[in-house]
Amino acid sequence: MGKKRVNVGLIGYQFMGKAHSNAYRQVNHFFDLPVEVNMHTLCGRNEAAVTAAAAQYGWANVETDWRKVVANPEIDVIDVSTPGNLHAEIAIAAAQAGKAVFCEKPIGNTLSEAEAMLKAVQAAGVPHAVFHNYRKAPAVGLAKQLIESGRLGTIYHFRAVYLQDWIADPNFPLVWRLQKEIAGSGTHGDINAHIIDMARYLLGELDEVCGLLHTFVKQRPKAGAINDKLGAEATNEMGEVTVDDAAMFLAKFKSGALGTFEATRFAVGRKNHHRWEVNGSKGSIVFNLERMNELEYYSEEDPADVRGFRVIQATEGVHPYAGHYWPAGHIIGYEHTFINLLADAFTNMEAGKRIEPDFVDGYENQRVLDAVERSSDSREWVKL
Amino acid sequence: MGKKRVNVGLIGYQFMGKAHSNAYRQVNHFFDLPVEVNMHTLCGRNEAAVTAAAAQYGWANVETDWRKVVANPEIDVIDVSTPGNLHAEIAIAAAQAGKAVFCEKPIGNTLSEAEAMLKAVQAAGVPHAVFHNYRKAPAVGLAKQLIESGRLGTIYHFRAVYLQDWIADPNFPLVWRLQKEIAGSGTHGDINAHIIDMARYLLGELDEVCGLLHTFVKQRPKAGAINDKLGAEATNEMGEVTVDDAAMFLAKFKSGALGTFEATRFAVGRKNHHRWEVNGSKGSIVFNLERMNELEYYSEEDPADVRGFRVIQATEGVHPYAGHYWPAGHIIGYEHTFINLLADAFTNMEAGKRIEPDFVDGYENQRVLDAVERSSDSREWVKL
Amino acid sequence: MGKKRVNVGLIGYQFMGKAHSNAYRQVNHFFDLPVEVNMHTLCGRNEAAVTAAAAQYGWANVETDWRKVVANPEIDVIDVSTPGNLHAEIAIAAAQAGKAVFCEKPIGNTLSEAEAMLKAVQAAGVPHAVFHNYRKAPAVGLAKQLIESGRLGTIYHFRAVYLQDWIADPNFPLVWRLQKEIAGSGTHGDINAHIIDMARYLLGELDEVCGLLHTFVKQRPKAGAINDKLGAEATNEMGEVTVDDAAMFLAKFKSGALGTFEATRFAVGRKNHHRWEVNGSKGSIVFNLERMNELEYYSEEDPADVRGFRVIQATEGVHPYAGHYWPAGHIIGYEHTFINLLADAFTNMEAGKRIEPDFVDGYENQRVLDAVERSSDSREWVKL
Amino acid sequence: MGKKRVNVGLIGYQFMGKAHSNAYRQVNHFFDLPVEVNMHTLCGRNEAAVTAAAAQYGWANVETDWRKVVANPEIDVIDVSTPGNLHAEIAIAAAQAGKAVFCEKPIGNTLSEAEAMLKAVQAAGVPHAVFHNYRKAPAVGLAKQLIESGRLGTIYHFRAVYLQDWIADPNFPLVWRLQKEIAGSGTHGDINAHIIDMARYLLGELDEVCGLLHTFVKQRPKAGAINDKLGAEATNEMGEVTVDDAAMFLAKFKSGALGTFEATRFAVGRKNHHRWEVNGSKGSIVFNLERMNELEYYSEEDPADVRGFRVIQATEGVHPYAGHYWPAGHIIGYEHTFINLLADAFTNMEAGKRIEPDFVDGYENQRVLDAVERSSDSREWVKL
Repeated sequence: MGKKRVNVGLIGYQFMGKAHSNAYRQVNHFFDLPVEVNMHTLCGRNEAAVTAAAAQYGWANVETDWRKVVANPEIDVIDVSTPGNLHAEIAIAAAQAGKAVFCEKPIGNTLSEAEAMLKAVQAAGVPHAVFHNYRKAPAVGLAKQLIESGRLGTIYHFRAVYLQDWIADPNFPLVWRLQKEIAGSGTHGDINAHIIDMARYLLGELDEVCGLLHTFVKQRPKAGAINDKLGAEATNEMGEVTVDDAAMFLAKFKSGALGTFEATRFAVGRKNHHRWEVNGSKGSIVFNLERMNELEYYSEEDPADVRGFRVIQATEGVHPYAGHYWPAGHIIGYEHTFINLLADAFTNMEAGKRIEPDFVDGYENQRVLDAVERSSDSREWVKL
Repeated sequence: MGKKRVNVGLIGYQFMGKAHSNAYRQVNHFFDLPVEVNMHTLCGRNEAAVTAAAAQYGWANVETDWRKVVANPEIDVIDVSTPGNLHAEIAIAAAQAGKAVFCEKPIGNTLSEAEAMLKAVQAAGVPHAVFHNYRKAPAVGLAKQLIESGRLGTIYHFRAVYLQDWIADPNFPLVWRLQKEIAGSGTHGDINAHIIDMARYLLGELDEVCGLLHTFVKQRPKAGAINDKLGAEATNEMGEVTVDDAAMFLAKFKSGALGTFEATRFAVGRKNHHRWEVNGSKGSIVFNLERMNELEYYSEEDPADVRGFRVIQATEGVHPYAGHYWPAGHIIGYEHTFINLLADAFTNMEAGKRIEPDFVDGYENQRVLDAVERSSDSREWVKL
Repeated sequence: MGKKRVNVGLIGYQFMGKAHSNAYRQVNHFFDLPVEVNMHTLCGRNEAAVTAAAAQYGWANVETDWRKVVANPEIDVIDVSTPGNLHAEIAIAAAQAGKAVFCEKPIGNTLSEAEAMLKAVQAAGVPHAVFHNYRKAPAVGLAKQLIESGRLGTIYHFRAVYLQDWIADPNFPLVWRLQKEIAGSGTHGDINAHIIDMARYLLGELDEVCGLLHTFVKQRPKAGAINDKLGAEATNEMGEVTVDDAAMFLAKFKSGALGTFEATRFAVGRKNHHRWEVNGSKGSIVFNLERMNELEYYSEEDPADVRGFRVIQATEGVHPYAGHYWPAGHIIGYEHTFINLLADAFTNMEAGKRIEPDFVDGYENQRVLDAVERSSDSREWVKL
Repeated sequence: MGKKRVNVGLIGYQFMGKAHSNAYRQVNHFFDLPVEVNMHTLCGRNEAAVTAAAAQYGWANVETDWRKVVANPEIDVIDVSTPGNLHAEIAIAAAQAGKAVFCEKPIGNTLSEAEAMLKAVQAAGVPHAVFHNYRKAPAVGLAKQLIESGRLGTIYHFRAVYLQDWIADPNFPLVWRLQKEIAGSGTHGDINAHIIDMARYLLGELDEVCGLLHTFVKQRPKAGAINDKLGAEATNEMGEVTVDDAAMFLAKFKSGALGTFEATRFAVGRKNHHRWEVNGSKGSIVFNLERMNELEYYSEEDPADVRGFRVIQATEGVHPYAGHYWPAGHIIGYEHTFINLLADAFTNMEAGKRIEPDFVDGYENQRVLDAVERSSDSREWVKL
């Protein structure tokens, strides 16, 4: 293409690795970017597995030691998609090596890790991004525009749930996502973090929170071989679940709005039910990730006899990102939120502008996660 | 109440008898009518059954001979809610006796009966009404207003289905609604008639039609004792089904719009799925009787980024009839369409105005039914 | 009908008075009760208004002094549908006079009032009922059956919202429902109480709560003449809003389940959005009052390839109450929940059985309301 | 990958060219195919445009003369994605050159073209496929399984609509899709063909049809420069619309089932509303392309109190194709139907098996299109 080439090194190759790989592969084909994204190196500890993954996903090289990727002078961007316990070390090393750092959320397993990471990228002056990819759904972009343009008026309420059911069976094994030392937390960091990001994106910072983290199933069979994107085989030995199965909290925003948040992996029948509603003085909106091409919108300014929640298909040229894909009504999917995020990230990086969302967002998100955890312990409201 | 009292005699006491009784009982309590509606006499051939029904539904008197009801000088309105084969005789006699005649649809079992009935009420100069009650749902009234005010622009399409499943089981018995000599037709007159009325109400007269009537199950167990609103016990003897199980047709309207109509009792899972959609140059609307408090509306005149089908809850004071019931969002049901119809009927009757819908509507409806039947026989388009 | 006649005296004739009147008028026509319900006396302070209401709603007599109704030996049941500040005095007097007492919710404006009322009916040994009418929707009855029969397994989550918008406009006047001395509280007792009742009905007692009551608009124009079911004219003088605009809380149930509750009158576009979801180990259910004829149900026991939330139309003979009305798919409305409640109440009363829900339910509900208020003040969890 | 490489030459690079290109680029990354698909050559008449498109979409070479692509011995598969008037010539030449031929639908602009094309591929013994891609949505694959396994019982009804609105504005210009000599027909071949394919796929062959093709807007501004996926600039000169704006027909299937079909570009608000419902004796299903990850399913075999249409998210490992993408509840989009189609096509091609759908399907589809056109002319039923 004659464009400047940006070489990416991706650390991690499981679920998020697959999603990120796809986005790197596709972003230049749907967007006319100022740079050409090159899938340089995929990194994982298991050489056979990472080699197979690289072939499947389209990476040019493989590596088993992330330090070599970070040290490779050809590589411009380090993408950190490992389990959470490795994020801080890799990201900080990458920043210190002068690489741009794109990191999965939550950026650290603790607030202090997140803070150290933020300081590292800021000290190094490198571009940084966090994969709060759901911001980048066209329907969410439209939601943002409706709020920012004042079409919803003063915002009174934000209410969000993120409901899944993949561990509702007590015999589902103790995979790494259920171990605090690796994952940091359970639903809280994994999916509550997503709706917290939505809240911050749409309404601004939270002011105080009061919440509860809860574990319904305290012991599970230890995990054997991985057998699915999120699963593994169950062994005969039991182990302790050290993360939350559900996390919920009330919040006040600095703006004066009220919020409710609930995340769980025990909502049988709910697969990826990330849903939120915003109520403002002039209107309301509703988003549901399972129907992510749609935004529901109610306008108090419609004629009195025809007010109602309308289902907008955010698939038209006027909607954020949608014009890069297919004609109206031809939907996109989960994977495209990553593509859109990368399109923005590479565009802003090349222009020397702040990427959104970045480690500041990652850190602020983690401040909320941390405050909710403390509230759950102290059984009272916690100020942010 | 000090108002003029209007005495009603109702002929028929099964499903429609129950629905009409309820409406007569309720209409004065929800509407401030110019008259007081009095439930004078309920008439049915089985004395014990009609006596029990009268007690249950609130009628002051019972009668087993409809001719006596028609002849009773105290009675002002004759409501004909018998099976279709008795409509013409009763309605004509009532008209000739100077009574107002309110009749279930389709008014006759044949077009010539309908014509004779229309002539009779016109000759007698008596008020007349037909129970196309779905016109009177608030959401349908709103639909009518949207079309009449031009908010949908030029209408291109009307597409309607009326789907039920209560006889899909081949062992369901041969009740009277499946016998041509009593019911006149099957789905065609029973439920296709309803969506035809909607079409005429909303878009005006049809110009030509091409259709098909079809019977999937040609023999059924003969019916024993009635055991439900629409059902009966099956006997061991088989009998011939002489009506259609499904009826569908294409249409052109005089306005230039196109229409599709489909009625069936073999849509397993569909209980009372009377649904239609209208597409105009400026917008579209959708109605579904199973969610009869709602109207979906799409406006091409909305800002380009927020167009979508909105779900209007037609439960507010600005919506037809809705202000007579409960606050916004507190829904009404099937029975209220009859109450609304009677409210209009008694109001117009007292004011000396035409009731809508009336026998003209009943007759025009039957012209369409008849044309579709002829088209089904001739296998070609039929002009109305 | 030859049945024992039960005479009812209704105190209060506005929104709830209209709904209750309709239910007393209709209950004998849809249900074959052991008694004949007689609408004996309607009571209100404004003689002209109560006289008009009695004529409209079908009451035989009117009275302006509730003490006379309570003292009338002909009257068997006192229905208390006044604003909350009068409940306790009337209900206690009625109990002491040996009347059955049917009372709107919340039964008292404070927990101590509720306690006194409960003691009074228990001491007098009179039948008592509270109008938590939404329990009586067929779809809710079905929900109860699904839970009780174990078809949802162990219950993990209950999440409920009750969203309205009728005071979202800051210029909406300061009607009595916004004055603590009359209404007791705002959304909390008015609508949060409804979803609390659902929670108790479906999952049993709560164990601890943590919540927040909030008032967005602290001053409003004082109210002039009543001009609508819930509204009034705004005057030029401002007054203090002394109740909550929104109320939300987290909860633990004694069973170990978790709950979230949110009630607001500031959810623009939400008219009567009383919606809850229950997640159990074998399935989940969702109810939304605006589509109250439907229950969504997901069963983990369905074949793996066809699992999904099904929309059950709870309008069939197999569903609670539904067989008393219309054929499948012909919906009922808001008013029928009151009719069903009265059918149960009169049946149980005549059989000498406990009515459900009764003042025990009213009192337990109020214990939750009270605990949430205390939590909102103390900013920490409160044990019930 | 060490696999056999299959070289593809794609003729056409506009909307379908983009969709096909994406699918060729992605298919090896989501599926473990027996071959490696190589994007060899993109062909279009405008050299600058095709060169830009090739760079954007990832093709190795460009060509402006399709004959050279067909003649290129390196190329194994010719993909025909031009406007319809060029299909026959290219496809036949490709077959004669021994290439596999993958062709957009409808395969020809006339039935005789389709027949010639089918004969050509059969005579040449080359693999052939037609892009009826919607068969390949996971939810549609599930529908097929439900029917084939007998879980819907005897099928009574198929009813389908394909509603769009992109030319509802009379000032939308006369693009090539509105010109019979290029496009062959309007909605009929473009979108009716899709729902006809669904009907054939799910229920088998049609037996007779009766239909109507209609043009609402008979003159439009001639088209200037292309400015969108489907659009162009309007000029000041008017031209004749020579295709249908809407096409609808009734059908009988050989199985005895009944069908209704309607396609239009004048359904304002409907963007890509390809929706169908199948009713069988044991259950029903509904599919809507705008929510293509979902299938609605009603089973008469569910317990009587919990029957309802369930919304299955066809995103789980048990659903066709879904396991190749993301975890449950993480949706895919329009583009993935093409990827799935290619995965099947290359797999079957390599195995020497018939590809489905192929030119036989294309031809049978066109027999239906042709019969409906003849019926529209003769105004009577036409036997297939």
